[in-house]
Amino acid sequence: MQIEVKITTWPLNAQRAWPAELDGVAGARAEFIGLVRREEDGHVITALEYEAYSPMAENVMRGILEELGRRHECLFVRVTHRVGVVPVGAAAIHVLALARHRGAALGLVTEFMDRLKQDVPIWKRRAIPSEEWAASNPT
Amino acid sequence: MQIEVKITTWPLNAQRAWPAELDGVAGARAEFIGLVRREEDGHVITALEYEAYSPMAENVMRGILEELGRRHECLFVRVTHRVGVVPVGAAAIHVLALARHRGAALGLVTEFMDRLKQDVPIWKRRAIPSEEWAASNPT
Repeated sequence: MQIEVKITTWPLNAQRAWPAELDGVAGARAEFIGLVRREEDGHVITALEYEAYSPMAENVMRGILEELGRRHECLFVRVTHRVGVVPVGAAAIHVLALARHRGAALGLVTEFMDRLKQDVPIWKRRAIPSEEWAASNPT
Repeated sequence: MQIEVKITTWPLNAQRAWPAELDGVAGARAEFIGLVRREEDGHVITALEYEAYSPMAENVMRGILEELGRRHECLFVRVTHRVGVVPVGAAAIHVLALARHRGAALGLVTEFMDRLKQDVPIWKRRAIPSEEWAASNPT
């Protein structure tokens, strides 16, 4: 299984090509995109700010994918996580898995997302609208 | 939950937009694409040919999605199935689900694919390379 893991401050591009040699070999493509919602824990927000120590977070993600790949027979998996300020409606994470059969691709993506939340050192904090900030910080 | 179901003879377009009012509301986008593999049941093929009685197959798919939507709280789901000749490497089915949370989106897509294979009246047959056909049909 080929693994690509990347943490980036750039907007995510879910349309990037996969290795051409998998055309006609892969029968299943499963994908997950995590998007920033306008409401976070009951607060209206304008963005989430993600922070990571990138080399370590990339290593942890790669380790999880290697482990999951032993149970879910995939051909290729790509995980891209955006850090820094991610505005409402934009993608914070993109996971793409290619496999011969659907169970492996969907299983790997689903389990990876569960493990990501538990095990990967990436933190987020809310960016709140300036009016709300002003209201709670009177001069 | 908004449901869009379509059977088409055209190449599938996985990049079609979703309803704009879900921007900032959806936190999870799960997607599955089923691709035609060069090998099918141990045979080398050039394409699969799918056949359906479209109004009935669309109704059955819609019914399955309504049922799954009661357990997996999604905002939007779109299923597009291609029929006719689908060449190796091309997409035969595309399922897209948007939800507030990832479990609902991934759960609905995964269960829909299982139900599709069991319950939806869409048939496929192999198109084999002409050399192989010639070899097994000597003149």
